[in-house]
Amino acid sequence: MSELAHLGPVELFTPRFDESLAFFVDILGMDIEAQDGPSTYLRGWGDYQRWSVKLTASDTSGMGILGLRAWSPQALERRVAGVEATGLGVGWTEGDLGRGPSYRFRDPDGHVFELYYECERYLAPEHRAPAHKNVPGRYTGRGCAIKRLDHINLLASDVRANREFCVDTLDYRLYERIELDDGSEAGAWMSATIAAHELIYTRDAHRAHGRLHHVALWVDTREECMRAADIWVDAGIPIEAAPSKHAIAQGFFLYGIEPGGNRIEVTTGGRFVYAPDEPAVVWTERERAKGQAWGVKTVESFHTYGTPPVDA
Amino acid sequence: MSELAHLGPVELFTPRFDESLAFFVDILGMDIEAQDGPSTYLRGWGDYQRWSVKLTASDTSGMGILGLRAWSPQALERRVAGVEATGLGVGWTEGDLGRGPSYRFRDPDGHVFELYYECERYLAPEHRAPAHKNVPGRYTGRGCAIKRLDHINLLASDVRANREFCVDTLDYRLYERIELDDGSEAGAWMSATIAAHELIYTRDAHRAHGRLHHVALWVDTREECMRAADIWVDAGIPIEAAPSKHAIAQGFFLYGIEPGGNRIEVTTGGRFVYAPDEPAVVWTERERAKGQAWGVKTVESFHTYGTPPVDA
Amino acid sequence: MSELAHLGPVELFTPRFDESLAFFVDILGMDIEAQDGPSTYLRGWGDYQRWSVKLTASDTSGMGILGLRAWSPQALERRVAGVEATGLGVGWTEGDLGRGPSYRFRDPDGHVFELYYECERYLAPEHRAPAHKNVPGRYTGRGCAIKRLDHINLLASDVRANREFCVDTLDYRLYERIELDDGSEAGAWMSATIAAHELIYTRDAHRAHGRLHHVALWVDTREECMRAADIWVDAGIPIEAAPSKHAIAQGFFLYGIEPGGNRIEVTTGGRFVYAPDEPAVVWTERERAKGQAWGVKTVESFHTYGTPPVDA
Amino acid sequence: MSELAHLGPVELFTPRFDESLAFFVDILGMDIEAQDGPSTYLRGWGDYQRWSVKLTASDTSGMGILGLRAWSPQALERRVAGVEATGLGVGWTEGDLGRGPSYRFRDPDGHVFELYYECERYLAPEHRAPAHKNVPGRYTGRGCAIKRLDHINLLASDVRANREFCVDTLDYRLYERIELDDGSEAGAWMSATIAAHELIYTRDAHRAHGRLHHVALWVDTREECMRAADIWVDAGIPIEAAPSKHAIAQGFFLYGIEPGGNRIEVTTGGRFVYAPDEPAVVWTERERAKGQAWGVKTVESFHTYGTPPVDA
Repeated sequence: MSELAHLGPVELFTPRFDESLAFFVDILGMDIEAQDGPSTYLRGWGDYQRWSVKLTASDTSGMGILGLRAWSPQALERRVAGVEATGLGVGWTEGDLGRGPSYRFRDPDGHVFELYYECERYLAPEHRAPAHKNVPGRYTGRGCAIKRLDHINLLASDVRANREFCVDTLDYRLYERIELDDGSEAGAWMSATIAAHELIYTRDAHRAHGRLHHVALWVDTREECMRAADIWVDAGIPIEAAPSKHAIAQGFFLYGIEPGGNRIEVTTGGRFVYAPDEPAVVWTERERAKGQAWGVKTVESFHTYGTPPVDA
Repeated sequence: MSELAHLGPVELFTPRFDESLAFFVDILGMDIEAQDGPSTYLRGWGDYQRWSVKLTASDTSGMGILGLRAWSPQALERRVAGVEATGLGVGWTEGDLGRGPSYRFRDPDGHVFELYYECERYLAPEHRAPAHKNVPGRYTGRGCAIKRLDHINLLASDVRANREFCVDTLDYRLYERIELDDGSEAGAWMSATIAAHELIYTRDAHRAHGRLHHVALWVDTREECMRAADIWVDAGIPIEAAPSKHAIAQGFFLYGIEPGGNRIEVTTGGRFVYAPDEPAVVWTERERAKGQAWGVKTVESFHTYGTPPVDA
Repeated sequence: MSELAHLGPVELFTPRFDESLAFFVDILGMDIEAQDGPSTYLRGWGDYQRWSVKLTASDTSGMGILGLRAWSPQALERRVAGVEATGLGVGWTEGDLGRGPSYRFRDPDGHVFELYYECERYLAPEHRAPAHKNVPGRYTGRGCAIKRLDHINLLASDVRANREFCVDTLDYRLYERIELDDGSEAGAWMSATIAAHELIYTRDAHRAHGRLHHVALWVDTREECMRAADIWVDAGIPIEAAPSKHAIAQGFFLYGIEPGGNRIEVTTGGRFVYAPDEPAVVWTERERAKGQAWGVKTVESFHTYGTPPVDA
Repeated sequence: MSELAHLGPVELFTPRFDESLAFFVDILGMDIEAQDGPSTYLRGWGDYQRWSVKLTASDTSGMGILGLRAWSPQALERRVAGVEATGLGVGWTEGDLGRGPSYRFRDPDGHVFELYYECERYLAPEHRAPAHKNVPGRYTGRGCAIKRLDHINLLASDVRANREFCVDTLDYRLYERIELDDGSEAGAWMSATIAAHELIYTRDAHRAHGRLHHVALWVDTREECMRAADIWVDAGIPIEAAPSKHAIAQGFFLYGIEPGGNRIEVTTGGRFVYAPDEPAVVWTERERAKGQAWGVKTVESFHTYGTPPVDA
């Protein structure tokens, strides 16, 4: 019962715009909803808003603005007041395409967020209208056929500080975290709903600021995750981690790097947290060394790589 | 952002206790957590509470008490006050196994509910301890290997009255409903979370009261639903509706009748409702005539049969 | 250890060529390999030959020529000699695109076949080259993403006569058949390999000749069959039988009608027959009345409709 | 069109019989068909013969006798004559449980085989009788619910010599092989059917003789492979390679070590080879260095470990 409804949309920067766009449209199977200057707005067939990913041509990679939808106008007001009190607020903006007034702020690590409530629902044009009216759009049947934006993993120099800000000020619920032997926090998995994770922070190995670990896009079945891997292999998309199951959150994953350099996950599954008083699971360094759910060891780059890249 | 956390546990009556118990344990793969007089408490490997289904020997079938967990002690207090104001309250009870003080009441149709907040979490004994500590219990790998209780479908003579009570007084969110050409309401799908449904009312064709349509138990994949069908066929469990996808809520189903007569669904999938202002989908009589998502026509018994059975 | 290697390619007639072609390419996700006059040659990404389905504009629907590849040049010679001896032979042809000398004949019901041995393997152009060299082509990731032609079901006035011809003269193996209470044969499932069926005959309810029941196209998983159903529903393709499991052969199915009127199945699964002395399973009328594997009743049109349609 | 029908049954030695048996019955979900002295005969629910795996208490691990069923009595005679001519024959035995006269021989590396034709079909007792009569036994729904024996991977000091013996003398078809830069052969994948592999030889890193790499057991879906991994993790079975897809043969795998030390694979999928003139795919050292189908690197133990273990 968070005051947040959900995370997104998200803006991604890419220094190789044309190739990134081709990846999102042809390989991931997302649809173009609108274009505006250096940006293209994309949607999965199951996103209820008009768009969930905004791809923006830039001189580097990484995340632009991350939207957070409040549960109600009143919840928005309360959360903005809370953020302002922390001194991290930036101020109100006009929002973005199909979105009402938005309050911009930075998390302690420097990532830019916008809190909003008002937004437009996607209204499918006739040729994209789905057979069932409880589904926003027609299944594209193209490439990975991404359904919707699912979650975001940010990097932070100080995971604990950001996690506490998210829980205390934004009203996120903490479901799982990693505490190293030295007492520091290496990762925190948070959610506004029963879904196992929506916003994740993991430690930035380079102690840089404002960087992105990955954007996760949803498909409904593990078979579709594995099908995505087949598509990526044939298309020459570098797979960083082949389909398998996470120990944390129990989600199924496929990780790779889009042409612009950003890490993309195709994901499904994950546990549901129905208990309102669910204690946060704390993983130790030793437990994490066991790897993923079926013993797959995490590749080193997963612990070090983020966008924008850090100069050597 | 409902004041309810989730639905359950649920009590089921059966006139053929031994056979029903064998079905739940051997065929569905649930575990026995406790026994008390005429009742046996059962759990799926993924239920976070000690039990989710209480099987009670009786002279007939149907539902006993349906638990509803409030989000917090304060939410419990507020909901109880609301129920009391409607005159449908019965009063406080000691709860049931592993559950604190519970407030008993009846919905307008006469089904018995208990609202509670306090409950015990399941603590797996060593031989049932799972490999991953963010999972309540070890995957049983027996029969259908049910994970947890998912949702309940009740029958009501007046669907609209019960739906309004659930939304207005219990704080359920309405996601979908059927409105017939005569303006009457034939079904309502409600939830306290982003899951597409937790509590459903459909019209009782016999205009009886307090009856059950079905109890739905969760597995994580459609393959497990189809595997359950294989197991049921071999075991001689009558399948009422073979695995397919619902149009409403988009869930995947398998329906059959347990030895005691109650309809059981093995389910997975279903859409997530992230929008806080999601408009309720209203299905017309004509739209419903198209059948399920892939055109499967609903069998007649699905519209008429419930438990306890109605005298001819 | 049949003298036949496998069935196919197959030619399909359609009175609505453009719409049929759009169905095969956009909805089924097959690729165009070549075009010649009124015909377009199509392939699934996993077909090892250049094409498996030839779509030919015609004034009606139904099957044109059905290819059968012999195991070796010697096996071809022996089978041709056998066919000639039955008086059903037509004579040698130049074959078709990418295929060597072919011997044309008719089965007792009048369907046209061509036996051949020589044929060209598909050589993927660079932009269609798969990542793994043991796969013929790149996974298309478009629509149903059909992998290859799987099996064909013909209609026949006299199933037994055609079955006996196929077993005795063509060297097919008989795996399953239906024998009605009056001793007549209602269906026969035959194969040249361990796959549960490649060539099927079922009774033509109209006692017509040379008609087609359906062409079955393969995908690797049941999830892809269900995904195909989603795509068909959105695209307005009439689904005759929603995804479920056959009792006979144990294959998973989705049936619908392509714009030209021919029945198309998207299929996967099915049992393997490793025993060289596997006794043919004989199903009785009563057993068939139980419906498909999970109890789904077969729709009436499945027993009566075929192509070309029969005048009333 | 091999003269062989299929591979199996297989005998496995184990120095920890009770634990191995518990693994095969409780974890893998195979059924006990018979017991005889130090041996227990096991079957999957889909094995058409009475048993497919014979577990024998021994002082070490590894493979005992590997059965090969000939396609016909005549094929058996011809193959035996061929083996005798190579000087690798041992002589006729009475066969084993439910099996007729068998001809014992050794492959060039020293593994013991028995060629046979006659064998008993499994006849399910009433309580194990399946609902559909084209299936040998009832789906167990216990543990990994193994369906049947699928394939065997042997280790050999000289892969090429053994591969040539299998192709030339036993009539196996060669589908894929690995040829290292020095011209030596590191692996060979052979089959008697359209299934991608039944008998595999890979190089014994210790230049020992007669050793086993792994026994592969079949389930029908990738979901069941992943489910098996969940069961193994909870049961403490060491997973050597988590579920993923092979590049060679395109099969889906899960590898682990049973309590007696033998490597077991739970497998499904794999390509079908319908072309009678399919050229054998030859993989280079560089191509193999890319890892499995989705890029998973093969763990070192997979290249070195076999049973019985080799003294240091």
